[in-house]
Amino acid sequence: MAPPGPRSGDAIFASVERVNAELFTLTYGATVRQLLTDLEEVEEVNKQLDQMGYNIGIRLIDEFLAKSNVSRCIDFKETADVIAKVGFKMFLGINATVTNWDADGTCCNIILEDNPLADFVELPDTCQGLYYCNILSGVIRGALEMVSMKTEVTWLRDVLRGDDAYELQVKLLKQVPEEYPYKDDE
Amino acid sequence: MAPPGPRSGDAIFASVERVNAELFTLTYGATVRQLLTDLEEVEEVNKQLDQMGYNIGIRLIDEFLAKSNVSRCIDFKETADVIAKVGFKMFLGINATVTNWDADGTCCNIILEDNPLADFVELPDTCQGLYYCNILSGVIRGALEMVSMKTEVTWLRDVLRGDDAYELQVKLLKQVPEEYPYKDDE
Repeated sequence: MAPPGPRSGDAIFASVERVNAELFTLTYGATVRQLLTDLEEVEEVNKQLDQMGYNIGIRLIDEFLAKSNVSRCIDFKETADVIAKVGFKMFLGINATVTNWDADGTCCNIILEDNPLADFVELPDTCQGLYYCNILSGVIRGALEMVSMKTEVTWLRDVLRGDDAYELQVKLLKQVPEEYPYKDDE
Repeated sequence: MAPPGPRSGDAIFASVERVNAELFTLTYGATVRQLLTDLEEVEEVNKQLDQMGYNIGIRLIDEFLAKSNVSRCIDFKETADVIAKVGFKMFLGINATVTNWDADGTCCNIILEDNPLADFVELPDTCQGLYYCNILSGVIRGALEMVSMKTEVTWLRDVLRGDDAYELQVKLLKQVPEEYPYKDDE
């Protein structure tokens, strides 16, 4: 008998424990503000947010694999689809779409239809250069590294910087051999 | 006709936008870890978490008043009940109970039945003295200040420090006159 297929992001999101999105938004905002105060340099804050996201991603992948029934993806294309359709829905409750694949299927863009991290946020002029949502790119990078994919994740568009959408570029750098204990359940 | 009464915490929690609790837990954990790295002193981290919570609380109160239909509480006793029964439910999805009132009704304890902030958390020995969830006490302090109550909020019990529950003491220091624009909708 075939194993149960992957669950939809909506179904998972409806079944997991959740907290109030505004509390999350404000907590994240307080974190960014604190980092700006402590580190002073915007570039340094971007780095720290990315690193924090990475640390979250390498743990969040466990929750993702446990709850989603997603097993090994056949290629990076499927992986990107799963991130957009299941991952963003399951954790943030939002939809995302994958676009703009390159010819060899190792680089694409993900456009977010909404972004609870940045609700009510306006950046002061002193924060030019800040990638406010950089924690998200770190989460994706960290989570993918745990399933053997080294990636580079960068912001192409950012509403807080005046763009009309949030758009990430996800580029596969290399597939690394899996190491214990990070393997799927085959 | 009487205005609509306050809504239950359950009803509000079911209707607000939410995010995955594990993402929230891990994001908060990454924040604490970052503060420990940046500030080095545990005492300093406690202070910063409290301050971050305060900054969140002074904004979260707006969401609370808008969504809960709670109007002016008649006394501090009612206020504490509303925090425990509506506030914790509405933001974290958890139940809390108020106990141990002093004779003049200005000091009580709030016991949390669960604490998503601290799920899966274990503190290393180097973090003795850390009040990991200090952001929560700051949130309560900040929110109450916006409705004219200066309070002191301290942890009496903390599971991460070996206690059998999470318990906060909330002490009313003084009622301050309301100032524009912080008034309720009477």
